[in-house]
Amino acid sequence: MSMLSQIINQIRPLDTLSMQQMTEKLDELVKPIGSLGRLEQLAIQLSGISGRTDIAYPRKQIIVMAADHGVYAEGICQAPQAVSQIQMVNMVKGKAGVNVLAKQAGAEVLLVDCGIDSAPIEGVLNHKVARGSGNIAKEAAMTRDQAVALIERSAALAMEQVNQGVDLLGVGELGMGNTTSAAAIVSVLCHADPDDAVGIGANLAPGRLQHKIDVVRRAIEINQPDAKDGIDVLAKVGGFELGGMAGVIIGAAAAGVPVVLDGFLSYAAALIAMQIAPTVHPYLIPSHCSAEKGAQLALNYLGVRPYLDMEMRLGEGSGGAMILPIIDSACMITRQMGTLSECDITLSIG
Amino acid sequence: MSMLSQIINQIRPLDTLSMQQMTEKLDELVKPIGSLGRLEQLAIQLSGISGRTDIAYPRKQIIVMAADHGVYAEGICQAPQAVSQIQMVNMVKGKAGVNVLAKQAGAEVLLVDCGIDSAPIEGVLNHKVARGSGNIAKEAAMTRDQAVALIERSAALAMEQVNQGVDLLGVGELGMGNTTSAAAIVSVLCHADPDDAVGIGANLAPGRLQHKIDVVRRAIEINQPDAKDGIDVLAKVGGFELGGMAGVIIGAAAAGVPVVLDGFLSYAAALIAMQIAPTVHPYLIPSHCSAEKGAQLALNYLGVRPYLDMEMRLGEGSGGAMILPIIDSACMITRQMGTLSECDITLSIG
Repeated sequence: MSMLSQIINQIRPLDTLSMQQMTEKLDELVKPIGSLGRLEQLAIQLSGISGRTDIAYPRKQIIVMAADHGVYAEGICQAPQAVSQIQMVNMVKGKAGVNVLAKQAGAEVLLVDCGIDSAPIEGVLNHKVARGSGNIAKEAAMTRDQAVALIERSAALAMEQVNQGVDLLGVGELGMGNTTSAAAIVSVLCHADPDDAVGIGANLAPGRLQHKIDVVRRAIEINQPDAKDGIDVLAKVGGFELGGMAGVIIGAAAAGVPVVLDGFLSYAAALIAMQIAPTVHPYLIPSHCSAEKGAQLALNYLGVRPYLDMEMRLGEGSGGAMILPIIDSACMITRQMGTLSECDITLSIG
Repeated sequence: MSMLSQIINQIRPLDTLSMQQMTEKLDELVKPIGSLGRLEQLAIQLSGISGRTDIAYPRKQIIVMAADHGVYAEGICQAPQAVSQIQMVNMVKGKAGVNVLAKQAGAEVLLVDCGIDSAPIEGVLNHKVARGSGNIAKEAAMTRDQAVALIERSAALAMEQVNQGVDLLGVGELGMGNTTSAAAIVSVLCHADPDDAVGIGANLAPGRLQHKIDVVRRAIEINQPDAKDGIDVLAKVGGFELGGMAGVIIGAAAAGVPVVLDGFLSYAAALIAMQIAPTVHPYLIPSHCSAEKGAQLALNYLGVRPYLDMEMRLGEGSGGAMILPIIDSACMITRQMGTLSECDITLSIG
C-alpha cells in the first residue's frame, strides 16, 4: 500500500457518540434549544472530530504554502512574479496580513516553500518541488509522481505538527498567478465552464479577464485532466502550493484535527483533497466566502457554508485566521454557560 | 429645546478627512489594494466615527436592556414570563450566553432593568419604567412621555459609560415575548405586512405562528402607530427594552462611539432610533444576520449588511459579542501590517 493510501486509511468518520453527547450538553445550557444556531452545529462537529465533549484549541496553526506558477508567463497576473518571494520574506518578518490576523487570534503561522522561483528563504521550511510549476497553458504543472510526493510530504508535515501539540490547522497560500490554476481545478472538478470559475484574483484589470479565461480553457483542453482523479487534476492544471494545501487537509483529517479553509485557493485544494479522499469532508471548517468569482460554485461542490461575509480576496490564510475566535467561542459556550438545572429553569425558555 | 433634541444635536457626521487618511493608510499596506474587503471598509468607518487613524477599542461594553411585555398575556411566547427575571439573575452570575461570548471577546456586560415584572434585581441597574409594558394587542405599550424619558435616560446612560472610558458599545436585550413587539415595529417602519415580519422568536411552536401574526396585526390596527414618528411607534407597539436599546444607539452616536447591533430586537430598536435621528446610521456596526423571519426585511431598511451568518436567535447581545474580534482585527491590520515602501514592494502586488 502506498504511503498516501496509508495516510488516507487513518481518517476516521466523526465520533457520533460524542456528537450525541455534545448535542445533549448544548440542550442543557441556559438558552432556548438550538438558539445559538450554527455555533452549536460547529461545537457538535468539533466534538465529532475530537471524540470529546470538552473541546478546546489552545494551539492553533496556519500553514502557509507558497509556490510560483509557469502559467505566470501567459500574462494572467498584474503583480511581478518576484512578489511571491518578497511577500514570503514579509511573512517571515511578521508583516503580512496573515501574520497580524493569526496573532490577533492566538495562532501560529508555519511557512512552507513548495516551489517559489528563488533560492531557499531563511525562516521558511524548504519543500521546493521545483522553482515554479510547469506552464499549464502548454504542459502539465508537474508529474504524477511529483503530485503524489507533494501531497504525502505535506500530509506528513501536518501530522507531525499535530504530534508536536498543534490541535487545529488552517491552510493558507501565496503564489503570483495561482488563481489561474485554482480556477482550472474548480472548472474541472465542478464541471463548470471557465467563464463561471475565473475571477480577477488579487487585482487583475477587468480588461484582462477574458484572456485569463482563455488561458484556463486552453490549460484544460491541452492537459485533459480526469475529473475523477484528483491527483491527475492537481498534476495537470494545479500548482505546488495547491497540492501542499490538499496534503495538509488530508494530513489534518488523518491526524484527527479540524482543518480551517481560507478563500478560493483553499476551496480548489479542498476539492482536490475530497476527490482523493472524500472522508476529509467532515474535518473541513469553512471560514469566509471569498470575493473571487468562482467561490460560490466551489463552495456548493464542497458542501460547506462559510460563516463570514467579508468580501476578502487576500489569501495567505487571512480569512481562516478570522474564524478562529468563533471556533474558540463554540468551545467556550459549552464550557462556561450555566445549565438549565443549575439556573432554576426547568421549562424551555424563550 | 428638549433633552432628546439636545442629545441628537450632538451627533456629528463621520469625519471624512480621517476616512480619506485611513483609505490611504490601508492602500499603503503590504497587500493588493482593497483585498481585505469589508474589513477595510470597517476600518474606514471606525476611523470616520473616531476621527482618528490609530483606531483601537480596549474597553468594549455590551448594554443588556431587559423588560417584560403586557402582550405576553396573548399567548405569543412558549416560555414562562418569569424567565425574564430568572435569566437576568443568570446574567448577573455570568452564566448566560452573552456573558460567555462577551468575556471571550474581552468585553464588559452592563445589565439594565427597564421594566421586568419583578422587584429590583441585585447587580442590575434599575431603570424600571413599570413592571411590564401595556398589552399592545389592547392598548399602547407606554405613554409618549414615558417613551421620550426612556430614550433620554438610556442615551444618557450610554454617554455616561463613554465618559467613564468605554470606547465601543453594543446593544443586547432580554424579555419574554419581545419578538412580538419587535415584529410590530418592523411591520410599521418597513411598511410590511405582519406575515412577512413575524417569526417564531426563541422557540414558538410553528402551530402558534398564525396566532402571533394575528396579535401583531391587531396591535397595529388598535394603536394606529404613525410610521413617520419613531417615538409614537415605540410608545404604541414597542416595549421598554426596545426603547432602552434605541436610546443607547442614539447616545452612542452622540458620544461619538460605534454601536454594535445584535439580532432582530436590535434591528427593531435601530429602526426606531433611525426614525428619530437618521444621523445615527453611520455609527451602526451590524454583527450577525438573525434567524428570525423578518430579519432580512429589517436589515434592508436599515441599510446594513451583517458580517456573520450563524443562524442565531438567542438575543442578549450574543451576536454583537461575536463580532468584536473582527472589529479588533480591523484595527490591528492598520496598526501592525507592513507598508509597501518598508517591504520592498513598489508595484501593486497581486
